[in-house]
Amino acid sequence: MARSSTQRRTRGREGRRQRQSEHAPYRLGELHNPFPPVTVIDGDAIERIADAAFRLLEEAGLEFRSDRALDILKQNGAHVDRETSMVRIGRDIVQSFVQQAPSQFTLHARNPAANVTVGGGYVNFMPVGGPPNVSDLDRGRRPGDFESVSNLMRLNQALGVTQLAGASLGEPVDLPVDTRHLDIYLAQATLTDRVWNGRGIGRARIEDALDMIAIARSTTRQALVDEPSTMTVINVNSPRRVDEELLDGLMAMAENGQPCLVTPFTLAGAMSPVTIAGALAQQTAEALGVIALVQMIRPGCPVVFGGFTSNVDMKTGAPTFGTPEYVKATLAGGQIARHFGLPYRSSNVNASNAPDAQAVYESAMSLWAAIMGGANIIHHATGWLEGGLTASFEKTVIDAEMIRGWAEVLKPLETRDEDLALEAIAAVPPGGHFFGEAHTLARFENAFYEPILSDWRNFEAWQEAGALTATERANALWKKLLEEFVPPDLDPAIEEALEDFVARRKYDIEREQ
Amino acid sequence: MARSSTQRRTRGREGRRQRQSEHAPYRLGELHNPFPPVTVIDGDAIERIADAAFRLLEEAGLEFRSDRALDILKQNGAHVDRETSMVRIGRDIVQSFVQQAPSQFTLHARNPAANVTVGGGYVNFMPVGGPPNVSDLDRGRRPGDFESVSNLMRLNQALGVTQLAGASLGEPVDLPVDTRHLDIYLAQATLTDRVWNGRGIGRARIEDALDMIAIARSTTRQALVDEPSTMTVINVNSPRRVDEELLDGLMAMAENGQPCLVTPFTLAGAMSPVTIAGALAQQTAEALGVIALVQMIRPGCPVVFGGFTSNVDMKTGAPTFGTPEYVKATLAGGQIARHFGLPYRSSNVNASNAPDAQAVYESAMSLWAAIMGGANIIHHATGWLEGGLTASFEKTVIDAEMIRGWAEVLKPLETRDEDLALEAIAAVPPGGHFFGEAHTLARFENAFYEPILSDWRNFEAWQEAGALTATERANALWKKLLEEFVPPDLDPAIEEALEDFVARRKYDIEREQ
Repeated sequence: MARSSTQRRTRGREGRRQRQSEHAPYRLGELHNPFPPVTVIDGDAIERIADAAFRLLEEAGLEFRSDRALDILKQNGAHVDRETSMVRIGRDIVQSFVQQAPSQFTLHARNPAANVTVGGGYVNFMPVGGPPNVSDLDRGRRPGDFESVSNLMRLNQALGVTQLAGASLGEPVDLPVDTRHLDIYLAQATLTDRVWNGRGIGRARIEDALDMIAIARSTTRQALVDEPSTMTVINVNSPRRVDEELLDGLMAMAENGQPCLVTPFTLAGAMSPVTIAGALAQQTAEALGVIALVQMIRPGCPVVFGGFTSNVDMKTGAPTFGTPEYVKATLAGGQIARHFGLPYRSSNVNASNAPDAQAVYESAMSLWAAIMGGANIIHHATGWLEGGLTASFEKTVIDAEMIRGWAEVLKPLETRDEDLALEAIAAVPPGGHFFGEAHTLARFENAFYEPILSDWRNFEAWQEAGALTATERANALWKKLLEEFVPPDLDPAIEEALEDFVARRKYDIEREQ
Repeated sequence: MARSSTQRRTRGREGRRQRQSEHAPYRLGELHNPFPPVTVIDGDAIERIADAAFRLLEEAGLEFRSDRALDILKQNGAHVDRETSMVRIGRDIVQSFVQQAPSQFTLHARNPAANVTVGGGYVNFMPVGGPPNVSDLDRGRRPGDFESVSNLMRLNQALGVTQLAGASLGEPVDLPVDTRHLDIYLAQATLTDRVWNGRGIGRARIEDALDMIAIARSTTRQALVDEPSTMTVINVNSPRRVDEELLDGLMAMAENGQPCLVTPFTLAGAMSPVTIAGALAQQTAEALGVIALVQMIRPGCPVVFGGFTSNVDMKTGAPTFGTPEYVKATLAGGQIARHFGLPYRSSNVNASNAPDAQAVYESAMSLWAAIMGGANIIHHATGWLEGGLTASFEKTVIDAEMIRGWAEVLKPLETRDEDLALEAIAAVPPGGHFFGEAHTLARFENAFYEPILSDWRNFEAWQEAGALTATERANALWKKLLEEFVPPDLDPAIEEALEDFVARRKYDIEREQ
């Protein structure tokens, strides 16, 4: 009896694993980064940047374009100018609130196996967020539509390198603006089993996200407060302005115990000084000011310090990414976040107009800086092109390959006796080879990283197979993954409840208009 | 008088600088890496790998296929089996010799401004070495020829990112094998002003290189012994075999005080165990054994510990590069080299058949590991494709852009008051911009890295300009650089002496046949 019960359990687990591997064949799982973060400035320089940020908050101040936010800030000791919405806050107040934010927290997914830890040595990838356009080699660049955006969700779920599902992976401009978020939420809730983001534009969209997540997780709204289950990106409208709709979204998130990724948009030379240190000082001031507000609303609420400092091309004013300046800002940003005990968000970004060599070398620079700089959440990890104006299907696959490689780099290099393999080495004569050795045969199947995109055949075999570039092979791979896509398990009753919720809310919103 | 003399000097310097900037418009100069090397194993693991390497040298031994090398090894306490050419050496002997090698040395170029320091925090790039094929987008992949190889030399000199000129940047198969090295040397001596490598295949080719370098530097062969002025790569024919011609080249180099890059060819799964730790143990044993021989020949002779450990695709046996395993082997290799106080050589490598996204993401992984792993010489830094079977013109330009970006990353991030820019930030109103600020205007021209290949225009402008990928733009750039190429200054008398030398040696060699 006991045995058959075990068998049943095993079969059940096996069955689930098999189904899961069908819908996410390459799933990476949780990633822990064992490397101490690479640092680019010393402790004294961190103090100087922190001091400059505090002086900015004390003297120049930030503009908070929300009466409710101004009330909260004033109640907690900030100097508020109602006429200009300018807020100046002493460093003691800022520090006393910022230090209440946790340095690590858990995000709960509807599939508990997809829960993620944010902070410490954990690194989580999240797909591209919200570009107006989508592109692929077949149809070129075009405005985003719901079908393409849903396909990007499927592709990310199948590739399995993004532990977080993100928000809208492109802007579905074929859907009405006021209810668009509901369609996106329903797609995320059904096409992925991972944590997905609410849209932090106004309070209602956050409330809708929380309602739907409570349904999807078969729990209550109240329970979510202690189990963070979604995130949203709150960009500061740099320099020094926080817009009303974003503040409404932020306050709704904080009241509900959900983490925001507070990310100033400090492009050096345009929205911040032309010096990286100046941009970092401004980024720090803007992030800390908003994070203090979060802690005023709900002390201990999880929140993430977002770094997005890059520079612009001073000839054209165009934003640039993956530049040497971006690398240094990313590394320093992580040092500053950790200085304040906060989890750190960075990005995998580039400014290329095509999924080509430039897209890859700029992305590769962003990626190493983010990972080795100790980022805990790496946004825009798959698919970003054109400084964020386009979500690319081929770039999604290329990024997945790069992230899979990095995930393998983060695993330890073992040096046990069996790894050092002295006997195997002694057994092969000088000039011989190891292919047939017992040590090799026992290990070769799982010894090395296996790529999903790289073609390691010799030139002649590659040429015979059509001489396809990696970008062309990426095109074939995303189509295959979409064809074979199996959505993750979801109780039909939950799916129905989600659909009902969306229908009811759409009806309400349309009637309000 | 004093003033006009200053003016003359200035004019002379300016003139030289101007001429130099004509022939090498993007020249990087000496690079010092301020980052502490990234480490992937702890001190205990380094000791375990070192111990395994010593045990291999003591018990399994290396095959030295040269009677002269066997004599030297035997005279210095090694156990030599004449029948099998196998050499076993106790760790005390190995250590006592290896520790005589300098941890840092200077290489002298015919242009003293192009001298380089090898070791410590210095990082030097060297172009691809010796692929049988060359390729470009116009003519495709083809066997190397002298004109193409010379053009690769010109291109590297013009791009200016390789502080070292390397050896033959492709194999000119249109030239006779026995005198080919002379044509290559003459091209290097006239088309570049940097240190170039001799060919370490046999003694005569090294002697020829030293003779020509003495002429080019207007000095004597004897003086070169104390002023290392060339290098050569000595690959161990892994596992555990050192071939005769390479040993002849190595011994000629060592007798003349010139540094070899001693590089075992330890591809895990094929020429070394399928485990990276095993491959590293073998790499360490092979490198230390050969380096000990160098020090037996000439104590204190500069020498470089070469790391080339990668893995093979276990499905096909094809070598792979820029893999996660490669990254870890590269980082650990640097730790081991520094453990023995030796400068470290690594590479910028990939296994792609085209200058595409795969070539770039594999190269980018190799590059960050080499640079952040503390490599002092990064070989194959420009142009390598196809696991080293092809030298690509477009990849040369792409690599140059990546290296230029890295060079900028290595510069310090300044955090002085003027960099923190508090006044500038306070002066720009919330939601404003910094374009017209005095702080911006005073700095914008040199504030940021300026790319040579990246296209940062918006999509529409890029599309109007032909929608060229980075690889296509690289094609245009190398052609432009070759068209505009101006060779570096060289005294016509020296050029003539070099040509005479080559003519005389060719006559001798042809007569010998």
